[in-house]
Amino acid sequence: MADDSLFEFLHMEIVSHIFNEQQSNKGELDNKDRAACISLLEAMGFRVGQGLIERLTRDTPSFKDELDIMKFICKDFWTKVFRRQVDNLRTNHQGTYVLQDNKFTLLTQFSGGKQYLDQAPKYLAFSCGVVRGALSNLGLESVVTAEVSIMPSCKFQVVIQKL
Amino acid sequence: MADDSLFEFLHMEIVSHIFNEQQSNKGELDNKDRAACISLLEAMGFRVGQGLIERLTRDTPSFKDELDIMKFICKDFWTKVFRRQVDNLRTNHQGTYVLQDNKFTLLTQFSGGKQYLDQAPKYLAFSCGVVRGALSNLGLESVVTAEVSIMPSCKFQVVIQKL
Repeated sequence: MADDSLFEFLHMEIVSHIFNEQQSNKGELDNKDRAACISLLEAMGFRVGQGLIERLTRDTPSFKDELDIMKFICKDFWTKVFRRQVDNLRTNHQGTYVLQDNKFTLLTQFSGGKQYLDQAPKYLAFSCGVVRGALSNLGLESVVTAEVSIMPSCKFQVVIQKL
Repeated sequence: MADDSLFEFLHMEIVSHIFNEQQSNKGELDNKDRAACISLLEAMGFRVGQGLIERLTRDTPSFKDELDIMKFICKDFWTKVFRRQVDNLRTNHQGTYVLQDNKFTLLTQFSGGKQYLDQAPKYLAFSCGVVRGALSNLGLESVVTAEVSIMPSCKFQVVIQKL
């Protein structure tokens, strides 16, 4: 659908804008520069996630516990935002959750396999932020990271920060 | 729908990112700095428009003339990208087209009326670029500008550049 393409294309533009800009300021990017770009994208995602979850939970009754929230993220939120449900949710029941998406929407434009694995973090930072922002507005502070071992499958790890 | 919100939220983020960044580099923004931000957003839109039109015209028979292309932009393209048709298309039959959208999707989050009129150009630059990019990939080089006299209604003026 074009609506989705619109988001996807804009997302690609913003990733390349942020990296190019850093590069034109600094020349060759070292790990620290790359981390700064990633964290900028993550911060944008965070604010977008906060906005999205407010709209999406407008008519949702309140959640009974943390697992209930995570299930909502994996089903309703993921479907609306990334157009499919998470394929698998695992937890150690101590605040760590692993969300496995076997066909993550922002990675489907890459060739499958391992060829572009080193590019993956750029294209996942925004989404990690979206998840963290959504959780934050539901009262859960978390650290969200993503890991790809074979495209377009992706594992998001959510570690809830206990106060 | 959340898919659309995702685009809208990301669009807001990118507008504010580009302006804030320019501001943090330069302090107070003068007209030239503002124009640089606008043109950056327009360029992003251009590339997004190029990508979108390729997908959208994949199964479309070729167009018979310029007006035919403009009608496609006003109906199919606008519906897919901005979620409604253009309300009114006018032309002088000499390459100038005015596309009136009475409820432009990226302006509906503003209060109606004239209060935020001075903010409008920021939020229209990307869309102007999208239209220009789409036309460009259909073989029409153009200049696209937008004008708001009362929110959320918007007029896009397209001037086709004859070779």
